[in-house]
Amino acid sequence: MLPFNNLIVTDRNSQVSIAAQISDQIIRLIRDGVIVPGALLPATRILAGLIGVNRKTINKAYEDLLDQEWIESVPRQGFRVKTNLPLIKPRSFHPVNKFEQTDRQQPVFIEKDEIPKLGKRRIPDYELLVTDGLPDYRLTPHNDMQREYRKHLDNKALNRATYFLDQGGHPSLKNATASFLNSSRGLNVAEENVLITRGGQMAIYLAITLLVGKGDEVVVTEPNYVFSDETFLNAGAVINRIGVDEDGMIIEEFERILEDRPVKMLYLAPHHHHPTTVTMSSERRLKLLQLMSKYDFWVIEDDYDYDYHHSNRPILPLSTSCHNGKIIYVGSYSKLLGPSVRLGFMISAPKIIQRALHLKRLFDLKGDVFNEYVLAQMIMSGSLDRHIQNVNRIYASRCALMAQLLEEKLGDKVSFAIPQGGLALWVKFHENYDLKQLIRKAAEQGLHLIGNACVNPASVHNNSIRLGFASLVEGEIIRVTDILRQLLS
Amino acid sequence: MLPFNNLIVTDRNSQVSIAAQISDQIIRLIRDGVIVPGALLPATRILAGLIGVNRKTINKAYEDLLDQEWIESVPRQGFRVKTNLPLIKPRSFHPVNKFEQTDRQQPVFIEKDEIPKLGKRRIPDYELLVTDGLPDYRLTPHNDMQREYRKHLDNKALNRATYFLDQGGHPSLKNATASFLNSSRGLNVAEENVLITRGGQMAIYLAITLLVGKGDEVVVTEPNYVFSDETFLNAGAVINRIGVDEDGMIIEEFERILEDRPVKMLYLAPHHHHPTTVTMSSERRLKLLQLMSKYDFWVIEDDYDYDYHHSNRPILPLSTSCHNGKIIYVGSYSKLLGPSVRLGFMISAPKIIQRALHLKRLFDLKGDVFNEYVLAQMIMSGSLDRHIQNVNRIYASRCALMAQLLEEKLGDKVSFAIPQGGLALWVKFHENYDLKQLIRKAAEQGLHLIGNACVNPASVHNNSIRLGFASLVEGEIIRVTDILRQLLS
Repeated sequence: MLPFNNLIVTDRNSQVSIAAQISDQIIRLIRDGVIVPGALLPATRILAGLIGVNRKTINKAYEDLLDQEWIESVPRQGFRVKTNLPLIKPRSFHPVNKFEQTDRQQPVFIEKDEIPKLGKRRIPDYELLVTDGLPDYRLTPHNDMQREYRKHLDNKALNRATYFLDQGGHPSLKNATASFLNSSRGLNVAEENVLITRGGQMAIYLAITLLVGKGDEVVVTEPNYVFSDETFLNAGAVINRIGVDEDGMIIEEFERILEDRPVKMLYLAPHHHHPTTVTMSSERRLKLLQLMSKYDFWVIEDDYDYDYHHSNRPILPLSTSCHNGKIIYVGSYSKLLGPSVRLGFMISAPKIIQRALHLKRLFDLKGDVFNEYVLAQMIMSGSLDRHIQNVNRIYASRCALMAQLLEEKLGDKVSFAIPQGGLALWVKFHENYDLKQLIRKAAEQGLHLIGNACVNPASVHNNSIRLGFASLVEGEIIRVTDILRQLLS
Repeated sequence: MLPFNNLIVTDRNSQVSIAAQISDQIIRLIRDGVIVPGALLPATRILAGLIGVNRKTINKAYEDLLDQEWIESVPRQGFRVKTNLPLIKPRSFHPVNKFEQTDRQQPVFIEKDEIPKLGKRRIPDYELLVTDGLPDYRLTPHNDMQREYRKHLDNKALNRATYFLDQGGHPSLKNATASFLNSSRGLNVAEENVLITRGGQMAIYLAITLLVGKGDEVVVTEPNYVFSDETFLNAGAVINRIGVDEDGMIIEEFERILEDRPVKMLYLAPHHHHPTTVTMSSERRLKLLQLMSKYDFWVIEDDYDYDYHHSNRPILPLSTSCHNGKIIYVGSYSKLLGPSVRLGFMISAPKIIQRALHLKRLFDLKGDVFNEYVLAQMIMSGSLDRHIQNVNRIYASRCALMAQLLEEKLGDKVSFAIPQGGLALWVKFHENYDLKQLIRKAAEQGLHLIGNACVNPASVHNNSIRLGFASLVEGEIIRVTDILRQLLS
């Protein structure tokens, strides 16, 4: 309830009656939008107590308001402000000087196209949705995680841990993460090397914000994961772009830049490159490691999709090689358990981890201790590993089906390589088709392609889009490819 | 399992037997710490399949390793790397150049005193803990929230919402927050004015990082909420400090600074100032609003404790007055529901909210849709309001008890004012007592005082600490005051 005792002040020495003073002030509050249309007024007894007047006075004030048609009587509920009053615009938070408010009739939903990049529309819940490669939420082990969660709600140590500042993640999850990374991909790290984040992107932000300053030269691939670009731009870096072919980043282009000027950082997804899904060849990996020992630069190794390999031959991360601590290794549990699980990690030397923790606390004082603990239990019990094995089989078959249907239905109109793993196909449309227009038309058919697209005509990857197959069941894959065939015919 | 097919490579043309090649390479992997002590080796049949050799060859290699005492046989499990081997230090993430690793024998827990400020110790779970004013976790409606959570696990729209980038919070929570703030404290905002964050600190970081640049003059109180200082320093701001007395920030000192030089931003908690708990007087509030219309500066109004008012007279936020959109209003649901609930909000003009959202996505691509939705339901159903009413009564009585016992037991050694609300007392110890030493000695008695303390001799608030009473039940309050009496006698 509003603090009416503060909002309504009566003056016994005034010539205006107390009841009139009260009704006048309520009208002003309605006019100012403090009391909104449809709001219930306090019961007369309560308001009388709050303001310190006789209940009859409030009755009289409410009668005034009824007469003037500001409020109406609702059976068994009391009085409410009339709902047909024009809704008052929020005012105090609409600056009149620098950040001018665009003309809008009333406070409705934010105009999504005022938000730069992506996610411009309300989320539809009935359409076919193709992401840029997210796991299927229907496979998220919600129930197992919830059961585990409830088991620990009364855990005193966990509850008390929520009183403290973030320590870079609950110790159990830092340990479990080190153990998970050591056993799944041959890293060689301990708790002190681990910072738990709310997803891989937070790790990328921390690394770039800590290590890259204004005017620093950085290198990314073209095309690139859009949010690493954005984060570099936010840090004021100068971005250099190098090409990608079927063996990954073209290392010779990188070497030419290094010969020419000092490079502060390289951002790279060597395993399943985003967006193109290609895996960097061993030769180029070796060459990159050589360049790292010759030149002094940082590398963010974004290994967001490591655990999804369809073949039996995952390539170990660059970070398993000797790199003098210059690689920041980044990954995400969201990709393993589902997009609702917001946990990731940053792996680096302890000094970097401590500086990153210091920065992280400035925007995220505390992590989610319970979620972190539950995930640690899942890792240590082996249930995360089992989950990965299960979904890997499912995703591999969805990949095969999507590839087969694209081939059958659109073979002459699209081209793609079957990736060694991951959750998406990088599909190039024949130059006769306008990808932007295709995405628009597909939306009209109820097919939302929200995968990362490359529509940069200068790029060899032009007219390509990531089709995330992992979140689609068989019937959905069939419908998606059918709609695409129909649109391209 | 490690990708042994990649890690072990055999050469049939070599003069060394295949079995010896394999055992040599496994030894190297153990030496390098890739296979850690205690790790189980794959079953011979599986490793044979992975490497593509005969199973007998693997048997032979394992026998070699047994002979050389690198591995041992475990009944019914197979072979494992001996556990008594010296644990190998992580290497690749320990840089040899810039960020040198301190000499440590093996990967143990991170040295907490390498982390700047606060939280330097492992979290003890058996001691008395006095925070700087957090709610009691035992009163968090965990079960209600969990029940609500489970109800929505299969909600298709919510699950699909997790596929999209953060829209500044789930629309339901943005709407509910606007409605909660409008009805509880007379703000006048709509969904477009709301950004949902992971706690109040994230909102402070966003506002400062967006609006304050290197070298900008900013103003805070002395003493101040330490993480606003840290965030200003992170942005490169020049911090000016003004005093606090029993009427809050000393506005005349602020005016003198404004007359002298341009101020970019003021950070302020006018309601229950942190750490001193004082509430700013109406005169000074008015004066501040006048200064805002005369000079052009931003204000962060941190209202972290608004809903906890022991009297019936909460003072409305500055943000309810006309301020041309120059106030960023910040608050937290963690203070209402418990420290495990990591949700807060930033309230501002739509253009600022959109820029903040753009920045937030760089480190937090997606919020926790389910938690956000559950909280929205609690707000709209009125259960948050009821919770606040309930705990307010409890906290008010804990405040009264703590004040009474401090008075009775330590009346001549401490001084404090009973705050108008909030979750902590700001207690000044007589100058004869060394507060730092007291905190140390209390810890030895099992009493951990982790509340914010002022030990700056230049400050009139020197030798003071926030004693959070809210998270302590009656018996704990008695024990805390008993230990303090004993230490001060």
